[in-house]
Amino acid sequence: MIIDCHGHFTTVPDAHKRYRQQQLAGESPEPAEIADDEIRAAIEQNQLRVMRERGSDLTIFSPQASAMEHHVPDPEIAAAWARACNDLIFRVTELFPASFAGVCQLPQTPDGNLGACVSELRRCVGELGFVGCNLNPDPSGGHWTSRPLTDESWFPLYDAMVELDVPAMIHVSASCNPNAHTLGAHYLNADTSVFMQLVEADLFDRYPTLRFVIPHGGGAVPYHWGRYRGLATRLERPPLDRLLDNVFFDTCVYHTPGIALLARVVPLENVLFASEMLGAVRGVNPETGSGWDDTKRYVDALDLPEEARRKVFEENARRVYPRLDTRLGQMV
Amino acid sequence: MIIDCHGHFTTVPDAHKRYRQQQLAGESPEPAEIADDEIRAAIEQNQLRVMRERGSDLTIFSPQASAMEHHVPDPEIAAAWARACNDLIFRVTELFPASFAGVCQLPQTPDGNLGACVSELRRCVGELGFVGCNLNPDPSGGHWTSRPLTDESWFPLYDAMVELDVPAMIHVSASCNPNAHTLGAHYLNADTSVFMQLVEADLFDRYPTLRFVIPHGGGAVPYHWGRYRGLATRLERPPLDRLLDNVFFDTCVYHTPGIALLARVVPLENVLFASEMLGAVRGVNPETGSGWDDTKRYVDALDLPEEARRKVFEENARRVYPRLDTRLGQMV
Repeated sequence: MIIDCHGHFTTVPDAHKRYRQQQLAGESPEPAEIADDEIRAAIEQNQLRVMRERGSDLTIFSPQASAMEHHVPDPEIAAAWARACNDLIFRVTELFPASFAGVCQLPQTPDGNLGACVSELRRCVGELGFVGCNLNPDPSGGHWTSRPLTDESWFPLYDAMVELDVPAMIHVSASCNPNAHTLGAHYLNADTSVFMQLVEADLFDRYPTLRFVIPHGGGAVPYHWGRYRGLATRLERPPLDRLLDNVFFDTCVYHTPGIALLARVVPLENVLFASEMLGAVRGVNPETGSGWDDTKRYVDALDLPEEARRKVFEENARRVYPRLDTRLGQMV
Repeated sequence: MIIDCHGHFTTVPDAHKRYRQQQLAGESPEPAEIADDEIRAAIEQNQLRVMRERGSDLTIFSPQASAMEHHVPDPEIAAAWARACNDLIFRVTELFPASFAGVCQLPQTPDGNLGACVSELRRCVGELGFVGCNLNPDPSGGHWTSRPLTDESWFPLYDAMVELDVPAMIHVSASCNPNAHTLGAHYLNADTSVFMQLVEADLFDRYPTLRFVIPHGGGAVPYHWGRYRGLATRLERPPLDRLLDNVFFDTCVYHTPGIALLARVVPLENVLFASEMLGAVRGVNPETGSGWDDTKRYVDALDLPEEARRKVFEENARRVYPRLDTRLGQMV
């Protein structure tokens, strides 16, 4: 089967967006009442249609990343918003259990308080059957006022992730900084910054089973793999290989040369198929007639041996998200 | 000939570093008195030795980037420090005129005031024979408190650059933000952010002859070339080609797959040979026995046709830095 590890619910019904507007307007709204048919329509006409067209079977699905808006400082708003977004993802996974598995948004705030995040993670994994979470390394939204992900202030979340055996995808939200465009800079910069944070510290000595998926093909990292190898040596850090039990990259790189580079420099055990559709880069490459984010075409073009192909398309995701593996086993 | 467009004086005599320490300690020191022999030794044992070993002929040379420290807010300190650093570069270009051409540090400060920068640029180009400048898009040092490079607050500098016909290399200085390691994240993120700023705006409609060199192989940009092409369409911006009269990438990517990708996706007219030695990534790749930053080996491995090779190694640099071309013509 083909598992896409990176999809967001970017096509939510309007009522859910209105709920958010009311929240931000200072009202105390109740989450929108949305009928099953509305959710079905939103999914069937969008993500599920594209999955069928392109031939992927299951998407690891989470709330819209740019709409997480962790820069909003009110913890109650953050908690209610994450809960409403995650409940919507849950309903998608109930309506289409063979096609979607849930990953949750955490109610992060710029103050870095993680108590509510741990609670929401436990709820989503324990009660809603989710298989992972998205973790924002910059809740400030482009001002980078928090501590690096290797700082002990993050450890309560890692304790819960390890206990629950779920990975996090590293994913910032919208940029509030005009220097860094959300989709064209902030997302990629965050991926790059976090990888280097992990090079600099010994987080995985303390958490040997903690797992992070760095999306968007790892930001700038694979393109600069030699730079990182050299820096690790110069900084007297362990070789990059030492990170590879814990750090994984997705294939959200939207052209063949990029995917080819990723597959050439990063061991294929650490590459998870993903497209992030319908996401940052919609539309069609006029030269090929295919969607920019139709990453399956780029991976297919690699002509990988069948064993490697299975890893990238399925087995790595099952290994990194063991609760997905269990979920799929229960469906057989 | 082989021109390396990106080298910094990272091996300055200790007296110059002491001068900086005195400055930052609040003293009002005079720039260090450094003998010609000290400068000769610093260069001959380091940059010039490596240039000879690797077979490059001329380096476009500027003060150490991480030591620019534009985050220090005092404009007088910034002006004196830039002047002292640039004067040292000038002496290198006088002692080794066939091997080095100067690019200046600007006395930027986080308040964004550019008056002193324009003056120092005029001094360095007009009096010292420099051929370009380094421009820091984030004088705050990793907090990104300034305006994007497309904002009109930067225009006084661009007016002077266009008048003098000199390009800028986009280059941040040390990161003061623990989230972004200077060499492993901040440099690359700045390259990425600035490219996207240029995608978002119409700067070159106003300044059709303004030229920027984006170093470190363009940060994440070439690896994500498809993403940027798709984003440009989605944002209803012109195709990326429209930037290519004004935006150039260097070859500071420290492994063969990265350089191969750069040469595959970016037209070779827009690729300038560079190594940034002795810079971020010193040391030797144990697998190849060559320096990580020996980028000539990676470019040689591309087996480019002679015409393309000449562009990357020489002609593009002469075109982007016309004052270098003039300088070289005067030496014949």
